[in-house]
Amino acid sequence: MKARLFTPGPTPVPEETLLELAKPVTYHRSAEAKAILAEMTEDLKYVFQTTNTVLTITSSGTGGMDAAVSSSLAAGEKAILLTAGRWGERWRGVLKAYGINIVAVEVPYGKAVTPEMLDAALKANPDAKAVLATLSETSTGVGHDLEAFGKLVAKTDAILIVDAISGLGAMECHTDKWNLDIVVTGSQKALMLPPGLAFVSVNEKAWKKIDANPVRNFYLDLRRYRKSIAESDTPFTPANTLIKAQRASLKRIRAEGIENLWARHAKMATAARAAVKAMGLELFAERPNNGLTVITVPAGVDGSATLKAMEKKYGFKLADGQDNMKGKIWRLSHMGYTDAFEVLGAFAALELVLAESGFKVEPGVGVAAFQKAFAGK
Amino acid sequence: MKARLFTPGPTPVPEETLLELAKPVTYHRSAEAKAILAEMTEDLKYVFQTTNTVLTITSSGTGGMDAAVSSSLAAGEKAILLTAGRWGERWRGVLKAYGINIVAVEVPYGKAVTPEMLDAALKANPDAKAVLATLSETSTGVGHDLEAFGKLVAKTDAILIVDAISGLGAMECHTDKWNLDIVVTGSQKALMLPPGLAFVSVNEKAWKKIDANPVRNFYLDLRRYRKSIAESDTPFTPANTLIKAQRASLKRIRAEGIENLWARHAKMATAARAAVKAMGLELFAERPNNGLTVITVPAGVDGSATLKAMEKKYGFKLADGQDNMKGKIWRLSHMGYTDAFEVLGAFAALELVLAESGFKVEPGVGVAAFQKAFAGK
Repeated sequence: MKARLFTPGPTPVPEETLLELAKPVTYHRSAEAKAILAEMTEDLKYVFQTTNTVLTITSSGTGGMDAAVSSSLAAGEKAILLTAGRWGERWRGVLKAYGINIVAVEVPYGKAVTPEMLDAALKANPDAKAVLATLSETSTGVGHDLEAFGKLVAKTDAILIVDAISGLGAMECHTDKWNLDIVVTGSQKALMLPPGLAFVSVNEKAWKKIDANPVRNFYLDLRRYRKSIAESDTPFTPANTLIKAQRASLKRIRAEGIENLWARHAKMATAARAAVKAMGLELFAERPNNGLTVITVPAGVDGSATLKAMEKKYGFKLADGQDNMKGKIWRLSHMGYTDAFEVLGAFAALELVLAESGFKVEPGVGVAAFQKAFAGK
Repeated sequence: MKARLFTPGPTPVPEETLLELAKPVTYHRSAEAKAILAEMTEDLKYVFQTTNTVLTITSSGTGGMDAAVSSSLAAGEKAILLTAGRWGERWRGVLKAYGINIVAVEVPYGKAVTPEMLDAALKANPDAKAVLATLSETSTGVGHDLEAFGKLVAKTDAILIVDAISGLGAMECHTDKWNLDIVVTGSQKALMLPPGLAFVSVNEKAWKKIDANPVRNFYLDLRRYRKSIAESDTPFTPANTLIKAQRASLKRIRAEGIENLWARHAKMATAARAAVKAMGLELFAERPNNGLTVITVPAGVDGSATLKAMEKKYGFKLADGQDNMKGKIWRLSHMGYTDAFEVLGAFAALELVLAESGFKVEPGVGVAAFQKAFAGK
């Protein structure tokens, strides 16, 4: 049986990238290594849509989030936290660890934080030094309106720090144009690499705040990475095989073109939503993003058992809900190296498993709806 | 031309490990992924020679050093820093970032900190909460007597925190028997993996200190890793392809046996030192360790040009001195997936390049001495 990965990170990695990982290891301080890092960084700037440099940290995505907070905020400073799920809560965890005074704007799982809520919070807290947001709340499938958030925060002295870990490269995100002051992403989502690298962009407004901040960390202090990247280098021995492989995956994005990539993800997401509705199911996210589709498990169906059956019988690995969402939602990623016909296959498998479990669905209705929506009909 | 890596990190990676990296990426929260992490952790305990669990952090080795310091020490607490080179200075950088009150026991590059020096420092500073040491000071080739350090620190309330990044797996190191309270290593040295993972062992004495310490970090807080590893899991999406590959390299170590591995490295180091002397050269380290051989560049020879010629003409990549040691020493690693005949080849290449540069050496004398010492003659 063929194994098919539809979890919202890690995602499938292109074959040419995997082969890059199998090449002999080289020295990370050579001229060649610096050229590779420089090339990868240029392509990252393209994906981020920024003219600022992008810093590469050897860590999980959370390491990048920690670096953003610990580099820019001092203990006792106030920050507005926008949270709509588990990854908003990850921001809360980081903020708490560093003693930040948190003003939380919270919505229930499945809902999105609105620009109006942020506007009110900014007005009520003119002393806030930062706003923490999430581009794609992967725990619920919600996408946030970062363009609107950016406009609001730009009018204030606060900096906007964005977790774009599972969104960047799948959904539209204009770091510079939207005034996103710090943007964090990870390698294992739409960037088509295994986990192990975090990438962080920082603009002038954010550097000013960072430069005035006390040292709160060593390994994750962004200032060290800025100093090194100016010489196409890293402050600490990086995961250099991953960097070489990331270069290969980014070449694929360059070749496709970022606008085409966004459009392709939008099309897959539209088709997936059509399939969900045609099958008589419901989308969990009120403002779904284009990186993944999250489906509410219908009453009477064992959500976790359905996913296990899909994997065991047909090789499709989707993600369950996390923590107290377990068994209540199905999360199907269509980020990165995944095409529409594979996603169509996943719906075919879901239909078969659901039909076997007694849920009333005519095999083919979801698949047909997917196909039609994909064709724009 | 065949490229040969003799830098003291990264080091060559076995072919079966490289191929592991080229396999399709899988989900990191599956039962299979947990089993792989558990298996790798068991083999790490064997390499560390500890019955305590070993924590896996997705980061450079320095991330592990940061985790050790920020998890266990509070601002203003006193720590004794033993420094004999660049990696001792790395400890200093981490300690400074976290506001630790540093008592430095410092020796010049090439020298080793002695147990007597540590004894005196402990007596003069009974309020010290920790001692920071380096197993292999890779910037100079010095190895430290951690067994003696452990005996001294065990008599006090301080904890002994060891950077064993480039030593563990190459030179004898008994975490439990020697009372090493926290030991940090990295994947890219004797453990035969590309960079990207740090491993940290912590004993009861150290956990007590850590549990009483304030939260100073989020991503690198060791308590989070302890909680997860109890369920064979990681707190953040780990570099799971590297974990799978690390398991493969550790199987190689298991198959060889740790005592045989130490003996093999000792033999290679002895042979390398014999070659150095036979060529009329000098060892830079007064107490050389078995992971690498560091040679003083003789007067009248351009050290950096010699290394460039070795790489360009014969494919041998050795490491230059770092910072102000550049051009003054040659660093030749024989850690991990490197055997004696490859090291012999490196000396043959060095002889040829030196002879061409006008340095008086008869090609063959170093190689012959290496061979004889290797044979135990």
